[in-house]
Amino acid sequence: MVKIAIDAMGGDYAPEAVIEGVEQARDLFEDTVFLLYGKRDVINQHLKNRDRIQVINADEVITMEDEPVRAVRRKKNSSIVMAATAVKDGEADAFFSAGNSGAVLAAGLFIVGRIKGIDRPGLVTALPVVRNANQSNFVMMDIGANADSKPVNLQQYAVLGTYYAERMMQAKSPRVALLNNGTEDDKGNKVHKAAFELLQQTADINFIGNVESRDLLNGVADVVVTDGFTGNAVLKSIEGTARSMLGLVKDAVYNTGVSGKLGGLLLKNGFNQIRSQMDYSQYGGAVLLGLKAPVVKTHGSSKAPTVVNTIRQIRQMVATDIVPGVAAYYANQQANQQASVDKSVEND
Amino acid sequence: MVKIAIDAMGGDYAPEAVIEGVEQARDLFEDTVFLLYGKRDVINQHLKNRDRIQVINADEVITMEDEPVRAVRRKKNSSIVMAATAVKDGEADAFFSAGNSGAVLAAGLFIVGRIKGIDRPGLVTALPVVRNANQSNFVMMDIGANADSKPVNLQQYAVLGTYYAERMMQAKSPRVALLNNGTEDDKGNKVHKAAFELLQQTADINFIGNVESRDLLNGVADVVVTDGFTGNAVLKSIEGTARSMLGLVKDAVYNTGVSGKLGGLLLKNGFNQIRSQMDYSQYGGAVLLGLKAPVVKTHGSSKAPTVVNTIRQIRQMVATDIVPGVAAYYANQQANQQASVDKSVEND
Repeated sequence: MVKIAIDAMGGDYAPEAVIEGVEQARDLFEDTVFLLYGKRDVINQHLKNRDRIQVINADEVITMEDEPVRAVRRKKNSSIVMAATAVKDGEADAFFSAGNSGAVLAAGLFIVGRIKGIDRPGLVTALPVVRNANQSNFVMMDIGANADSKPVNLQQYAVLGTYYAERMMQAKSPRVALLNNGTEDDKGNKVHKAAFELLQQTADINFIGNVESRDLLNGVADVVVTDGFTGNAVLKSIEGTARSMLGLVKDAVYNTGVSGKLGGLLLKNGFNQIRSQMDYSQYGGAVLLGLKAPVVKTHGSSKAPTVVNTIRQIRQMVATDIVPGVAAYYANQQANQQASVDKSVEND
Repeated sequence: MVKIAIDAMGGDYAPEAVIEGVEQARDLFEDTVFLLYGKRDVINQHLKNRDRIQVINADEVITMEDEPVRAVRRKKNSSIVMAATAVKDGEADAFFSAGNSGAVLAAGLFIVGRIKGIDRPGLVTALPVVRNANQSNFVMMDIGANADSKPVNLQQYAVLGTYYAERMMQAKSPRVALLNNGTEDDKGNKVHKAAFELLQQTADINFIGNVESRDLLNGVADVVVTDGFTGNAVLKSIEGTARSMLGLVKDAVYNTGVSGKLGGLLLKNGFNQIRSQMDYSQYGGAVLLGLKAPVVKTHGSSKAPTVVNTIRQIRQMVATDIVPGVAAYYANQQANQQASVDKSVEND
């Protein structure tokens, strides 16, 4: 049985959309148990069938306006803190929320805790690759957990992203690239130049060099490594531009008279396909990778289908042992370092 | 008479496309003289009419493969170096090239030189605003001149961008925003938090706070201030996503049988409008602002229409005295500082 702790109170459509998604997922995935944290009375009003769904009362709610770190420290009885604590205590395998992003990250970091060897967990998300028969998506990391990153953080994102792409997207020896301001090896600011050097020396990743943001959607890499500030800006640029373009297409249909409307009708299926191809909530939410268990944050605007996709994603993360895989990688790195220290002592 | 020094040898379609564009511009703008730098024999082969076009032989060419700073130092007889030198010597009012970007920037920095008070010139470009009846474009700066930026550089981009937007886009009291990882005042990494504080204290700009890249194309600001690394990534994300979306629309037309093709035909005008709306070469090239004269870099893929647009842009920059305006601003700032130092000495 996979046990997932869920913040029922997070997101613009909570708790209804969360509960609806959880009930749909429960009906789809027979080996999964759901721990639903939130105001018991409200949850019970909406819950149709309690089969494999356990409701745990959480008196407090962390709102979007709360200062994240302080809220996680003070609101001990909030749905986010209680769900994260269940993971820490081994009562659940993973935790997810559509609520206050900062609070979800803080709860992950301070309550669930980091894998030994990871300095800064980062947020990973899958994004679509378009017009490429050989690849349908890629992952990018960090998309915004850390506003200031050191080269070693980017190196760790590369390892974490490799595990994620291998196990979640069945990418064999995933191509890892550094998002940079040019494709040549010597490009970048200080942090990215140093990160490039580190990535070249990193064991067990398939580093292919620098890529530019212009080429991401074409499938130039499976794992795109970036600092959280740039990654956040790039992700939001892609989102905003795609939305603007879809809006322009809509205008072309509606503002060009009868012929435009007829054209739009004839192309309706094609346009719907574009919309669904660009909708990356199909891959679930953003995962804070580098923690001792999967912690997933979905868009505040998530509705039931995104909740179902996120639960599917979490089940796969648990089934493919991503966290134990990363933990073993870093334990091994440390053992190798120790061995090489021992050896150099012997040789003295 | 406006005199423009032009690198005839830069860009994928040089010298033909450059010469063709210059001849078209010459026919359009009667008060403009063109100094065309490059291999005289080659230029003369393509030049139809020498009216107001002076050809100056440049034996060397800086290629796309040349290391920029070294090439500018060594290739004294290259079209880029000679054109920039003409500006320095007062023989021309401005300089532009579609060649090696780094070399154009280096020639601007080392030959044309900085305005007193500006630490790091930055690259500015105009980008489209879509689906907004009140605004058709905005400017973003720095889009990649400096990979590492300090808060004071971002502050100077805000001033430079304000002058550019006021005089090139007739924006009254242009809204200046900082591109950040959230809209709240306390968002950002260290550099952006410090830049926010500086922008709040900057005289004579209309700072409206932080914006996210997701909202740029909607027209949330007239001047978007960003460090060159992030700005470069965002610009290329917008470009890449727009291109991918247009590709998907094309696929929708061609891969959905007869009805799709008919739909495409009916929407042809609408699609062409989208394409031309997203094509920001209509605004000319990217300007390295902060130099003692306009230095403009256009895409390597520029053809004659972009050359014409860039010449239009340069003429307007010269006519609206952007460079003298910025120079006066910083001279005034320094005079104020001196006055306040004098006053504090008096009070002692």
